[in-house]
Formats: sequence, structure tokens, C-alpha cells
Amino acid sequence: MARVVVDVMLKPEILDPQGQAVAGALPQLGIGNVRSVRIGKHIEIEFDGEADLDRAREIADKLLANPVIEDFTLRVEELEEADQ
Amino acid sequence: MARVVVDVMLKPEILDPQGQAVAGALPQLGIGNVRSVRIGKHIEIEFDGEADLDRAREIADKLLANPVIEDFTLRVEELEEADQ
Repeated sequence: MARVVVDVMLKPEILDPQGQAVAGALPQLGIGNVRSVRIGKHIEIEFDGEADLDRAREIADKLLANPVIEDFTLRVEELEEADQ
Repeated sequence: MARVVVDVMLKPEILDPQGQAVAGALPQLGIGNVRSVRIGKHIEIEFDGEADLDRAREIADKLLANPVIEDFTLRVEELEEADQ
């Protein structure tokens, strides 16, 4: 088993109201050293056998990200657990 | 400027219908080697000055994750761009 992680984020020029809401709440927690918060999606795709980056890219492109407003990154993640 | 990345995922024992929906659509794309898909949140917190993992943990704990059903991981991300 192998895992590919896809992180989908809004493009930098797209406003992220959810992240802004979190950033706006930080002063009430006494946190003043945060410049920005942006919130996206983190997707873990587990493959039977070897990690298949090309397939993962196809899945991200067709099902996970909206290419008009979002960018995504892919990486193979080493699995720390030997179970399954 | 420094960035801390928080990844929030449903705990393994919690059902993830959104991920299951993506996994269920894969055979129509001709993809048969995926065992599971799970979808969580990817949050990028940018600090003025140095990365502050303790603050980031506090933000994740209080604002980003629901500890009853979600786990989160933190890491400092090196910023590849020198701008800003």
C-alpha cells in the first residue's frame, strides 16, 4: 500500500473568506504575529501496491481541484505504519 | 516570514462520505487501483518573523480542528519564494 497526498489551495489571487475569518479571530486569542491564514483541502489517496502519481494527478485534475480557482500539489507520503 | 502547515483529518474510525464519493467515482475514470480516499483540511498559517509552532498548535486546537472527530498534524514549511 502507498499513499499519495494532494493539497488543493485557492490560487493566491483568489480571496479566501474562511481563512480570513480564522485570521480575524486570532487577536481575541491574544495572537498578533500571524500575517495570514489560508484554508484548502488535504486529500490522502491510498493505492494498492505502488503509489501512482500519474493516476493521482488525473484524480486531482478531474475530481478534486477546480483549475479555474485552485492549484494543487502532489507528493508520495511514506507510511509509518506497517499494518494493513 | 515563516509558514506553518496544519493538516486536519477525520480520525480513522470516523466515516468520510466526501472521500467515499470520490473513491466511488474512480472506476468511471478507469482507475481500479485505489483503496481509499480521505479528505481533510490543509491550512497554511503565515507568521511574521519566525514560525511559532506553539501558537500554531493553539490555533489548530481552538479554531481549526474538532478534537472529538479530527486529528491534526503540524509542520514548518520552508518557503521557496523570496518575495514578500
